[in-house]
Amino acid sequence: MRTRLPEAFEQLLETTRRLEEHYQDMQDIEFTVEDDRLYLLQTRAAKRTAAAALKAAVEMVDEGLISKEEAVTRIDPAQLDQLLHPMLDPSADYEVAAKGLNASPGAASGKIVLDADAAARQGESEPVILVGWETSPDDIHGMIAAQGILTAHGGMTSHAAVVARGMGKPCVAGCEELAIDAKERRVRIGEQDLAEGEVITIDGATGIVIAGPVELVPPQINDDFETILGWADEHRALQVRANADTPEDAARAREFGAQGIGLCRTEHMFMAEERLPIVREMIMAGGEDERRVALEKLLPMQQSDFEGIFEAMAGLPVTIRLLDPPLHEFLPPLEEATDDRMRERIKALHETNPMLGTRGCRLGLLWPEIYEMQVRAIIRAALAVEERTGEAPLVEIMHPLVGFAEELHRLRAITIATANEESEDVEYLVGTMIELPRACIRADEIAEHADFFSFGTNDLTQTTLGLSRDDAEGKFLTRYLEDGVLERNPFETLDQSGVGDLMRIAVERGRSTREGIKLGICGEHGGEPKSIAFCHQLGLAYVSCSPYRVPLARLAAAQAALAEQGAAYVGAGG
Amino acid sequence: MRTRLPEAFEQLLETTRRLEEHYQDMQDIEFTVEDDRLYLLQTRAAKRTAAAALKAAVEMVDEGLISKEEAVTRIDPAQLDQLLHPMLDPSADYEVAAKGLNASPGAASGKIVLDADAAARQGESEPVILVGWETSPDDIHGMIAAQGILTAHGGMTSHAAVVARGMGKPCVAGCEELAIDAKERRVRIGEQDLAEGEVITIDGATGIVIAGPVELVPPQINDDFETILGWADEHRALQVRANADTPEDAARAREFGAQGIGLCRTEHMFMAEERLPIVREMIMAGGEDERRVALEKLLPMQQSDFEGIFEAMAGLPVTIRLLDPPLHEFLPPLEEATDDRMRERIKALHETNPMLGTRGCRLGLLWPEIYEMQVRAIIRAALAVEERTGEAPLVEIMHPLVGFAEELHRLRAITIATANEESEDVEYLVGTMIELPRACIRADEIAEHADFFSFGTNDLTQTTLGLSRDDAEGKFLTRYLEDGVLERNPFETLDQSGVGDLMRIAVERGRSTREGIKLGICGEHGGEPKSIAFCHQLGLAYVSCSPYRVPLARLAAAQAALAEQGAAYVGAGG
Repeated sequence: MRTRLPEAFEQLLETTRRLEEHYQDMQDIEFTVEDDRLYLLQTRAAKRTAAAALKAAVEMVDEGLISKEEAVTRIDPAQLDQLLHPMLDPSADYEVAAKGLNASPGAASGKIVLDADAAARQGESEPVILVGWETSPDDIHGMIAAQGILTAHGGMTSHAAVVARGMGKPCVAGCEELAIDAKERRVRIGEQDLAEGEVITIDGATGIVIAGPVELVPPQINDDFETILGWADEHRALQVRANADTPEDAARAREFGAQGIGLCRTEHMFMAEERLPIVREMIMAGGEDERRVALEKLLPMQQSDFEGIFEAMAGLPVTIRLLDPPLHEFLPPLEEATDDRMRERIKALHETNPMLGTRGCRLGLLWPEIYEMQVRAIIRAALAVEERTGEAPLVEIMHPLVGFAEELHRLRAITIATANEESEDVEYLVGTMIELPRACIRADEIAEHADFFSFGTNDLTQTTLGLSRDDAEGKFLTRYLEDGVLERNPFETLDQSGVGDLMRIAVERGRSTREGIKLGICGEHGGEPKSIAFCHQLGLAYVSCSPYRVPLARLAAAQAALAEQGAAYVGAGG
Repeated sequence: MRTRLPEAFEQLLETTRRLEEHYQDMQDIEFTVEDDRLYLLQTRAAKRTAAAALKAAVEMVDEGLISKEEAVTRIDPAQLDQLLHPMLDPSADYEVAAKGLNASPGAASGKIVLDADAAARQGESEPVILVGWETSPDDIHGMIAAQGILTAHGGMTSHAAVVARGMGKPCVAGCEELAIDAKERRVRIGEQDLAEGEVITIDGATGIVIAGPVELVPPQINDDFETILGWADEHRALQVRANADTPEDAARAREFGAQGIGLCRTEHMFMAEERLPIVREMIMAGGEDERRVALEKLLPMQQSDFEGIFEAMAGLPVTIRLLDPPLHEFLPPLEEATDDRMRERIKALHETNPMLGTRGCRLGLLWPEIYEMQVRAIIRAALAVEERTGEAPLVEIMHPLVGFAEELHRLRAITIATANEESEDVEYLVGTMIELPRACIRADEIAEHADFFSFGTNDLTQTTLGLSRDDAEGKFLTRYLEDGVLERNPFETLDQSGVGDLMRIAVERGRSTREGIKLGICGEHGGEPKSIAFCHQLGLAYVSCSPYRVPLARLAAAQAALAEQGAAYVGAGG
């Protein structure tokens, strides 16, 4: 029996060509040749790396096989994420030592360091991976200096995971097979016993941890990437902004195509090493006068922060959120208090449920001098930048955690009065986060005092569902997902029928008293495709997400717009 | 100049008679007599004690001056509260040592005791006042035994205040002029320095604290009281139930006219001294089997609790809420852990925001054997009581903290399957608390699995407003009230435009899928007149409040119904 392979191959090539023309996509084809005949067993859209998918889509448009719109709808936004970070070399050989949660995408190799101070020091001269039980706001300097973060504890919304995603830095969290011996400065990762200083590799896209170095592939932002996003931008209705707290993040966000900053948190500025002592002085102050003295010292620092961000975002809007976290977050743990007075203050500020305590705009109403300082710093920065560059920054001042119209009514008055004391020539908007159910329900009253609303869907999810991120992840929420009580983690994908319905009510009621109110979202959902599609349907003006998610959001926003326009574009090319 | 007083007095009497006929109410009249002439300066409705107000109203009805309906609308429901508790003798002479919050009405005298164990011991033989910085669930036995409670810390919604109101026991909370020296067993109250064992008197209606005993006047429930409430009952649409966890409370509630129990909490049953060790055994269990062993021991205890309550409420519905608080509430503080294993468990169960953590129905889904035990105890108790009395209890099983329909869907299935294992002859309803904003928003889906909704407005207020009772009272909420940001404490008077609007949405949506769903409220607002009026407008079937508030609620419910019927009754009598 003679198999005439050449003929079968010719047949196959012709069939493949026809199939791809028919399906208008690259195909994986299974076939067999028996008795000189070609049998097709199965054909389906080919699995590709993100880079190959982009390349294929762009080429098919070039060849006239599909339209640009169809190319845009074909790319999985989540795949774009891969391209923005280093990856493990697909051809590398390695053994997985342990597996944790894929908390923040990207791969990194570096020496193990077991505390943030060491990471900050050592990270300046060589790549390090910060390894710990979990991280806290005190560890920020070490996280900035490290190539990647590995924690034994915490879930997808733990401090390490959230901050790492914000920084676009690889993170494997909740790695249960990681045990740390802080005294001996050693770690056990699965079967491996390693000392601080030995090299490990983590892949935050898959959650794997490897003992030793692995070859990495650098980020692959190429022409295809830019081409597809260019096409996407032609179609989306949603603007895409970034959540960024530093000039560096702002500049990176802009490179990725961000059209402004939707959330500039000011608390990280308070956490910086050289400022924390002054912030503590402010918190420990015996009265308003003493507090104002400390705030006076913080003012020029905040001003310079804002100047840097305004310059990086010249011509684009910047939404600055005034101080949000409870003040006890800036004090050390009780056992590290330096004197009795501090111990007393720590005890007095202790809260049973800090998530629902004295934070957000409640701080601004209790101690108006704090927000006054921040408003002054914003206005002075705007003036300084305009003088330097000739261009006035587009300033949006945002008050967090408003639940009652009267809160914003008073804070707006304080904001305007303080700004006017500095200058009457600076233009700015005053708005609020919408992150409490009551704010959604009474958005009509609140809108009377707000130029804009920004949905803070992280906190809105916590309050609407009565669910603390810190206490749910890795505990009952994980079980709910495993057992199918919930299909999706509501902190990753917006709970559309619950939280989303409250947002819909807020949009309707907000517009009922202020028709043209600017609406956006700055929760983490602003960087998740399904949630972005919902925001599009809701008619928001923008989504804001971490800088590294901006490309993904641009694509997802375009897909939402195209989906709404229906099947019009499918097959329009070719 | 001769003043002919007798004539002036005659004139005055006649004038008063005419004025009271005109205004149809007792009058306070200011007058002067000059040059033999009577000058009326002012006349207004007279201020009266509650007892006098009732008496006057009943007499005016008897005299045909006003209608019964008008009599009902004239009594201030808050005044009724006075009549249910001992008061300071108005003629007594005393000096106020300090003032705190009027946290729970009534007056009491007793010896100072500084810890709950001592109060429990000593309180059996003589009147004691439990004095402390604050109270916790561990102190319940001492609070039960004490005549009254005095705390230095905490607001109107602190543990001491809430529990005392539930018990109908006098409480002065947040008394800042109280300093406790636990080592020397002494207290300083204002200027007074007292040792444990010395007598103090507190008045929870006014918040005053007195060193030494003061004569008290006993509660004044009399015929007028019953007469007015009888008239009230003819008009109200709302049923009035009570929140009661023990047969004694249930019986008292019934005496006050409660038409059922709207909330029987099962956690207090877990806290009882002889049971706590078993509850801890259950929590410390290494796995489901071990847990079931401990639960098996709790079962007969719970059963006997329920039997007592069912018997006390024969013929009336009893709503039993399955276990609600996070399990760590049943463990001692970390420093009191008895061994490493307990220390580990306490750490593992620690929560950042326990209010939003693993509690409510989440417990029932994570460890179904807990709720199964409770359902078994309920069904067995119902069977036993029916056998004993010939009357089947009206059982309503309530699942707390439901946010997703799927939670209740599963819990309903577990409830029914477990009940059927015990007996298929017991009838009962399965329903849920509505205490999360998401539950209001998706009441349509949840109602598909619920025979009834009971609004848990305490927690619904906390989540809707993003506001922890424990952290707000005495802190920013107090400032909000002082500064006029808020007019009323939303934990005392329902926030109608926020929380209330969510309730309205829940009622509409719940009825959209289950038209005849039974609706009630069991938050503390169920005993507050303005909130009761709102519940009437909302069309709820019942309000449920602490036993001592039942008379007040009956009156307030009637007033709400009469107000709706408009001015028809005003002046209808006479």
